[in-house]
Amino acid sequence: MNKGLLIVLSAPSGAGKGTIIKKLMDDDRSLKLSVSATTRSPRPGEVDGEDYFFLSREEFEDLVKNGEMLEHAEYVGNCYGTPKGPVERWLEDGLDVILEIDVQGGAQVKEIMPECVSIFILPPSMRELENRLRGRSTEQDEVVNARLEAARNEVHRAEDYDYVVVNDEVEVAAEEIRTIIAAEKHRFSRVSSIVERVLIDA
Amino acid sequence: MNKGLLIVLSAPSGAGKGTIIKKLMDDDRSLKLSVSATTRSPRPGEVDGEDYFFLSREEFEDLVKNGEMLEHAEYVGNCYGTPKGPVERWLEDGLDVILEIDVQGGAQVKEIMPECVSIFILPPSMRELENRLRGRSTEQDEVVNARLEAARNEVHRAEDYDYVVVNDEVEVAAEEIRTIIAAEKHRFSRVSSIVERVLIDA
Repeated sequence: MNKGLLIVLSAPSGAGKGTIIKKLMDDDRSLKLSVSATTRSPRPGEVDGEDYFFLSREEFEDLVKNGEMLEHAEYVGNCYGTPKGPVERWLEDGLDVILEIDVQGGAQVKEIMPECVSIFILPPSMRELENRLRGRSTEQDEVVNARLEAARNEVHRAEDYDYVVVNDEVEVAAEEIRTIIAAEKHRFSRVSSIVERVLIDA
Repeated sequence: MNKGLLIVLSAPSGAGKGTIIKKLMDDDRSLKLSVSATTRSPRPGEVDGEDYFFLSREEFEDLVKNGEMLEHAEYVGNCYGTPKGPVERWLEDGLDVILEIDVQGGAQVKEIMPECVSIFILPPSMRELENRLRGRSTEQDEVVNARLEAARNEVHRAEDYDYVVVNDEVEVAAEEIRTIIAAEKHRFSRVSSIVERVLIDA
């Protein structure tokens, strides 16, 4: 069995990343959405190993110290990160693993696993993003404005990604991501063993 | 309109490149198969500008001297090459242009237009390639053996290509090439103008 593909998926808040990932997961049993680790406490209904790996701060910091985190960050007093072990096991099992992470996390993963494929999801326009953020928000204007400013900064980081997909329609964007995954499986670097096999079977 | 994609397609003799290209061209009006230039005389029925651009040796050498050939080679006393001008015009018109060339030509094109996408077509096995070459050949054994040896050397050059597609079934191989072309259109390097547009439309 061929090893799976590691896919880094990033997008500014409001670009529709969650909906696209749901669509992708519903349609494809060989895709696995990675599970993050966190030091925050489980909320009612959250399942360890499904929603998050819930770790003590000591456990979390040990993983970081031993180089067993693909990426990690602290956010309002809690640590979040992607443990390397489960991701590598899923890849060995032939699953394509999606990491849903921000641009800082994406850069860290690319450093550790440069063979990953990175995709940045764009909203059709900043105006549309603003509509989506204001539409779903009960927050004050300044909160939405801060989010928009953050989104604008993240969009600039799209240049660090291999591919860009515009989320105008969820169906189309999901199909484009599927196409990118399918094409990447033909990269010479991933199929050099096939070339060997063709030559040997003389 | 977006600029088209330049696609370098190479394969050892007998891998079925011609059939795959025919399948691709039949299904897609935005694909253009590049036309080579040659100094050999037209054969009955061959049309200038369709089958080949028929040039005098002087005209051909002028194009080479002026850097207007993407690749060229001499073969049994005649020159063959790909003039740059028409390819660039088709690309500007938004057509995806296929160059059907050998591994030496592919390396030359990559030097001049590094933004090209290169795909190497493999036979399922060297044994299958041998069957195909012997099956269609009225030639002596040593001629077929020489072709097989040449094919084996070419397969080793697959490592210079971006993608590898195995031609087990023509339909499947053509679909895989279509997928690669579709995915490559989302490469950040080709869509950076989209990122600009999203940011500007605030």
